Amino acid sequence: MTTEKIDGVTVTTKANVYFDGKCVSHNLTYPDGTKKSVGVVLAAELTFGTAAAEIMECVGGSCEYRLAGSDQWVKSGPGEKFSIPADSKFDIRVAEAYHYICHYA
Amino acid sequence: MTTEKIDGVTVTTKANVYFDGKCVSHNLTYPDGTKKSVGVVLAAELTFGTAAAEIMECVGGSCEYRLAGSDQWVKSGPGEKFSIPADSKFDIRVAEAYHYICHYA
Repeated sequence: MTTEKIDGVTVTTKANVYFDGKCVSHNLTYPDGTKKSVGVVLAAELTFGTAAAEIMECVGGSCEYRLAGSDQWVKSGPGEKFSIPADSKFDIRVAEAYHYICHYA
Repeated sequence: MTTEKIDGVTVTTKANVYFDGKCVSHNLTYPDGTKKSVGVVLAAELTFGTAAAEIMECVGGSCEYRLAGSDQWVKSGPGEKFSIPADSKFDIRVAEAYHYICHYA
């Protein structure tokens, strides 16, 4: 099932703009201090690095991703998640748009 | 003063993507039902239409805007607001990025 809404959070009003706008996100903070972000990757093929481990949850559109050390592209669509270890990276390719929630694991 | 955070709101996780990604926003709903959005316009010159009246509040970067019926471009930077009537339109040009909160008046 797709997470359409997130309740009761603090939104940082200024967006994060990556790769000349191919990825735009807004940071969210929960009352208990948990941080997540909501964002979109537009048509592009990009490589993201992680500091903390991340779980990417698709809330619209789709992507293909390839984790570091793998040569396999895997599709991820609405309601699906994938995990990236800390201090790693992943490739992502998007044909149209990939809407996501980024959870820090 | 710039509004850096908005507390206690519901965020719609899927972004609004306009003009091929030159404008990306996320919808917010307050507990009392009030709706706003937070977004960013990237380097572009665009024309937006309004249904309801809007107040655009800059939270980062800057833009120049021109209201319908005016030939004057006006700059808007962090902490500044401008109002657009209902059923109208405005031109906006952005050199780098214009981060905003859109209030529906």
